[in-house]
Amino acid sequence: MSSSTSSSDRKLVMIPGPIEFSDGVLNAMSTSSQSHTSPEFIKVFQEVLVNTRKLFQSTDSSAQPIVISASGTLGWEICGANFVDKEDKVLVLSTGFFSDSFADCLKIYSDNVDIIDASSFGNIVPYDLIESTLKSAKESGKPYNLITITQVDTSSGVLSNVEKISSIVKSISPETLIVVDGVCSIAVEDLKFDSWGIDYALTASQKAIGVPSGLSISFASGRAMEKALNPNRKITSFYSNLKKWVPIMKAYESGNPAYFATPPIQLIHALRQSLREILSVEGGVETRILKHHESSEKFKNNLNSIGLKLVPEREVAANGLSAIYFPEGIDGPALLKKISDKGINLATGIYKDYKTKYFRVGHMGVSSIGEGRNDVDLCFKYIKESLEELGYKQ
Amino acid sequence: MSSSTSSSDRKLVMIPGPIEFSDGVLNAMSTSSQSHTSPEFIKVFQEVLVNTRKLFQSTDSSAQPIVISASGTLGWEICGANFVDKEDKVLVLSTGFFSDSFADCLKIYSDNVDIIDASSFGNIVPYDLIESTLKSAKESGKPYNLITITQVDTSSGVLSNVEKISSIVKSISPETLIVVDGVCSIAVEDLKFDSWGIDYALTASQKAIGVPSGLSISFASGRAMEKALNPNRKITSFYSNLKKWVPIMKAYESGNPAYFATPPIQLIHALRQSLREILSVEGGVETRILKHHESSEKFKNNLNSIGLKLVPEREVAANGLSAIYFPEGIDGPALLKKISDKGINLATGIYKDYKTKYFRVGHMGVSSIGEGRNDVDLCFKYIKESLEELGYKQ
Repeated sequence: MSSSTSSSDRKLVMIPGPIEFSDGVLNAMSTSSQSHTSPEFIKVFQEVLVNTRKLFQSTDSSAQPIVISASGTLGWEICGANFVDKEDKVLVLSTGFFSDSFADCLKIYSDNVDIIDASSFGNIVPYDLIESTLKSAKESGKPYNLITITQVDTSSGVLSNVEKISSIVKSISPETLIVVDGVCSIAVEDLKFDSWGIDYALTASQKAIGVPSGLSISFASGRAMEKALNPNRKITSFYSNLKKWVPIMKAYESGNPAYFATPPIQLIHALRQSLREILSVEGGVETRILKHHESSEKFKNNLNSIGLKLVPEREVAANGLSAIYFPEGIDGPALLKKISDKGINLATGIYKDYKTKYFRVGHMGVSSIGEGRNDVDLCFKYIKESLEELGYKQ
Repeated sequence: MSSSTSSSDRKLVMIPGPIEFSDGVLNAMSTSSQSHTSPEFIKVFQEVLVNTRKLFQSTDSSAQPIVISASGTLGWEICGANFVDKEDKVLVLSTGFFSDSFADCLKIYSDNVDIIDASSFGNIVPYDLIESTLKSAKESGKPYNLITITQVDTSSGVLSNVEKISSIVKSISPETLIVVDGVCSIAVEDLKFDSWGIDYALTASQKAIGVPSGLSISFASGRAMEKALNPNRKITSFYSNLKKWVPIMKAYESGNPAYFATPPIQLIHALRQSLREILSVEGGVETRILKHHESSEKFKNNLNSIGLKLVPEREVAANGLSAIYFPEGIDGPALLKKISDKGINLATGIYKDYKTKYFRVGHMGVSSIGEGRNDVDLCFKYIKESLEELGYKQ
């Protein structure tokens, strides 16, 4: 496939990111060159930053949107470099591969990173364990400085209850900064940044936000910013240093140019377009989330109806992807190959020993809720047909 | 301007990056979604990595191309995080704002960063000073571990002679790693990575390579890689850690998928297209460089012919941009406004006290050497007309 935006022999991409993009977004990607300090581009970036606040359901003017040229991974480093000191205590709640990788990153910045694992693959971290861990740290006189919650771990498809965990943290250890990895959740799962008291949430462009990969998009609270911008705090990173980036973001949001590194002009145009598409729907982000939930429920019900078992139980399952066990006796790679030959690319598993035991379907953005599209139904049809062709019997 | 690739009321962008892009490159930017692990994308990334070697005029299989989602700035951090230890001695040759910023970045990674400044704004760093500095370090028993040369400092338009400086380093202090900031030079100035003995050269997509901003593109020697990948070396960065990235680059270049962070699919398609355009011309990169030199000479001769003074003397002037002093009595902002109103966006100055005394014209890529285009001549015409309208007399 070369550069066409629609081609009949092209495979539909239904992995948990990158997702399918709208025509408007793809058109914006080919915006002609613009100077990064021109009034035309400043307006675009300004709109993006203002609308990013809405994406995080925030109206708190002390909170800070941050949009940087990078993979989503940079958000982990922004967290480590700006909100974590070497002697800080960090608690990572792990529901899979991506939670663990986040911990790996934070270990560079803190000598005290503790991880609490989910009770089992496909499950959440038990609340009582979170409570007791926070309590004993608090009682020892050394409460955790920061906790991370991976709202959706893309490896397991587990959805953590950020609102509930956040309220536990607030009640036991209110000084602890609450960080949410929202890479596979922002714009598909509910995240009320202000009212849940989140301090930093990070995501990437190529998942539910519906923009090609290349943008690290994140959001920091006033409290987190105070720590990051403390003039006495020495920072050990250059590219992820918020002391460099925040003046740039503030300038553009207020309609002025500023320079630290050249912004990715075309990706920011694409993000403007996608945010417009998301926010122009009545109810904005909340409507988008609701529609994704409906679409996900229908797909998961269909999968269950033919006897397929999902990795996470329904009450802790993400709405932007489904992680599905291969049925007993079915050759996994052969199944994915059959589905791909029919026209849809799905993703393999990606968690330790379970890697070959399950596969993943992404259902975010236009594939899930695009008007006049039936990608999710088509995907179910191909899964069902392919299983039958491989001799699957319920 | 919205998302059209050509619009008659659009300003031509002739700043020293981002530059104007070819239609082929802009089309590639709107490539439909692809899985980052699909055979289709692997082929694209593989071609990009193979062709990146040609861009750096390298055939040394121990050297490593690195293409990462980020602004060019990340290249500085890759250098600091991977090739510099805290106790290492680093020598920065400064010919302007960007050399100084590179030094700022390296100070995070080394406690011993020395800077030698150019003899004056618009000039190069004197060779005898480079020699004596390297010699006295060598004689003290603590030679420099790394030296940086900004081949073209975009702030001053000064072109440093990398071949000559490199041979000085080799003769006095052969153990010193030689690093070239080629952000405003790769694909427009000559850089023979292997034969000049360079250890690391970094650039960005939006300059002479002719691809929208969002890609950090760099190249490391076998000797540099040995230091970076030393298993005993502790690295203090996550996103710029070559121990993470090199296995990914090696996998894609050999035609296999691998995952550390999602690559920027569309930008990599655009880079493939641009590299094809560059390399399909007879003589490849060398022809491209030659053509840029011719175009630059003509433009600079024209500027001189109406009495304009360039910031650097001709023998140390870059070929991808011109830094031009405003003539006495001419209101700088008024001049740039007039030229912009006629249809071309140029850049202001960006170096300390000189900031308001000069302006910059970028002439890289299609604007400089595109078939059937006369952007550079048009730009000269607008500069001349605008000066006349402001009462300029030679």
